Amino acid sequence: GVAPAVQAQATIRWRLTSSFPKSLDTIHGAADVFAKKLNEMSGGKFSVTVHAPGELVPALGVVDAVQQGTVEAGHTCPYYYAGKDATFAMGTAIPFGLNSRQLTAWYYDGNGLKLFREFYDQYSIINFPGGNTGAQMGGWYRKEIKTLDDIKGLKMRIGGFAGSVLTRMGGVPQSIPGGEIYQALEKGTIDAAEWIGPYDDEKLGFQKVAKNYYYPGWWEGGAQVDFYINKAAFNALSPEYKAMVETAASHAHVTMQAMYDARNPAALKRLVAAGAKVLPFPKAVMDSAFKHSMDLYKELTDSNPHWKKIYTDYSNFRKDQNLWFRFTDAQFDRYMQSAKL
Amino acid sequence: GVAPAVQAQATIRWRLTSSFPKSLDTIHGAADVFAKKLNEMSGGKFSVTVHAPGELVPALGVVDAVQQGTVEAGHTCPYYYAGKDATFAMGTAIPFGLNSRQLTAWYYDGNGLKLFREFYDQYSIINFPGGNTGAQMGGWYRKEIKTLDDIKGLKMRIGGFAGSVLTRMGGVPQSIPGGEIYQALEKGTIDAAEWIGPYDDEKLGFQKVAKNYYYPGWWEGGAQVDFYINKAAFNALSPEYKAMVETAASHAHVTMQAMYDARNPAALKRLVAAGAKVLPFPKAVMDSAFKHSMDLYKELTDSNPHWKKIYTDYSNFRKDQNLWFRFTDAQFDRYMQSAKL
Repeated sequence: GVAPAVQAQATIRWRLTSSFPKSLDTIHGAADVFAKKLNEMSGGKFSVTVHAPGELVPALGVVDAVQQGTVEAGHTCPYYYAGKDATFAMGTAIPFGLNSRQLTAWYYDGNGLKLFREFYDQYSIINFPGGNTGAQMGGWYRKEIKTLDDIKGLKMRIGGFAGSVLTRMGGVPQSIPGGEIYQALEKGTIDAAEWIGPYDDEKLGFQKVAKNYYYPGWWEGGAQVDFYINKAAFNALSPEYKAMVETAASHAHVTMQAMYDARNPAALKRLVAAGAKVLPFPKAVMDSAFKHSMDLYKELTDSNPHWKKIYTDYSNFRKDQNLWFRFTDAQFDRYMQSAKL
Repeated sequence: GVAPAVQAQATIRWRLTSSFPKSLDTIHGAADVFAKKLNEMSGGKFSVTVHAPGELVPALGVVDAVQQGTVEAGHTCPYYYAGKDATFAMGTAIPFGLNSRQLTAWYYDGNGLKLFREFYDQYSIINFPGGNTGAQMGGWYRKEIKTLDDIKGLKMRIGGFAGSVLTRMGGVPQSIPGGEIYQALEKGTIDAAEWIGPYDDEKLGFQKVAKNYYYPGWWEGGAQVDFYINKAAFNALSPEYKAMVETAASHAHVTMQAMYDARNPAALKRLVAAGAKVLPFPKAVMDSAFKHSMDLYKELTDSNPHWKKIYTDYSNFRKDQNLWFRFTDAQFDRYMQSAKL
């Protein structure tokens, strides 16, 4: 048919700052996917330029930059901002939290997105789920971890919120940028380091200097990345562009998890061929980490009303999810994992 | 800024036929989500009306209707069409196949979408993943299944492709529409029936007439639903609308799995309270089903070049996925499922 004489959409130019270097083609790539889809859907009229950390904003400065409108959008891990408020941590992953599918279910069909939109309002941020890594590995260790005593005094590069659980276990968390981890491990300045999983870890070559590769990453059973949009910038969009932002984010969300799942297996095989020793954490280490995590959550529930409000919903959801997943999904997966394929 | 004087998008009216009744708010709902997002993104200019089975096209007539252009779009389970070509089955789920995340990974970042687009070209169909149920339950049984002998002669309502494995195990698959299953179970015309999982099964009340509820649904470790688009209709779209179709489908894909995951736990609890007995299949039954499935896949690989091409890629991917998932994801999930939450 003939095109009706309606008003065309306005031209929009947004800048998006990512917390992730371009070398992480999976996570940084999810922001590229988001920008590409918006560009395609709008015929080039809604353009988003994606900026690596440091180009406009430091890696961990996304909340401030989006809040102040320095940029219209960011792509980051909420838990980087747990120093502002521990509540942020639940937006990505907390130790012994929801896994990837469960977190996605909580956001989209539980109360997750609603509760976080309320929480982020004080930062003038509107968020959209923008990718998940799946369960991460538990990191690289120069020496084997055989008992809980091996955690005592362990100097480990680990993210902030999980670090507070490691401290309670007697470990010594270290904050070191990705690009400096290898050298610190090689020199023995640190004893261990966690990064992400096989596909990303392989690029940094850790197996050469700390070959013991532990699982599971109990502090990241499914780490979500979010798109943060400045509230005024979002509200200035037409209804059409708002819907495009939502679906472009969902597309990035589903394809980022797909990238990790599709690419990790071959990377794991290469790492093992290169000398990595893949080992499970001893049960005593898992149990200690679990106990200290639950203690921490209880303290936060008593002291932080934001945490209390969201964690109450999150932890009820987690309880139900694990009850259900234990049956058909877990049993199917376990059978397949032990089958001769 | 001022809107540029560009050509506005054309008005598009599509009809989408769903294989699923409106009562299945999860699966039928995914097509509604797809239509709603397209409507929002296009400012109402790209409208899709969603039709229940029988309104325009029978439930299982989606391939023919989309191929012939009777409708521009459909939302259906590819495995319904395994009678045309067994290859269709891999598009949804095959016994002991990929789980939900793995199938999504294969489609989006493996070769799945590419291979299926090639396969569907003979039907003038372009497909987009449009939802997954997660691992389904193994159905409702009037009597307990204690040994492999209990499968012999078992008259069971089960989908076509899985039915051919059940036949090899000595069972007698029955084809019965959803609305007639309850009565057949009550009268004893059939001994067992599988449907989907707690949230959908609860609506049909099976626990009242066949209380033994088995897991896992080894024939549906993650059942995907697809949007099928008529090739000529898709190719006639502007690049903008094509991109909108893609992201609206991705949004429906991620939100449908979220709906199932978020809603199944409470439904399972209600079913148990109403008398359902939740039981695992005996290992001998699982092993027999696995063996017969692998035999069938070997025969299909020898006889069907379409199957061979896609299954070769699919089965390699499955092997790698299960190697990888066994480590951090499965170990994390297992710990959580046994933890006191």
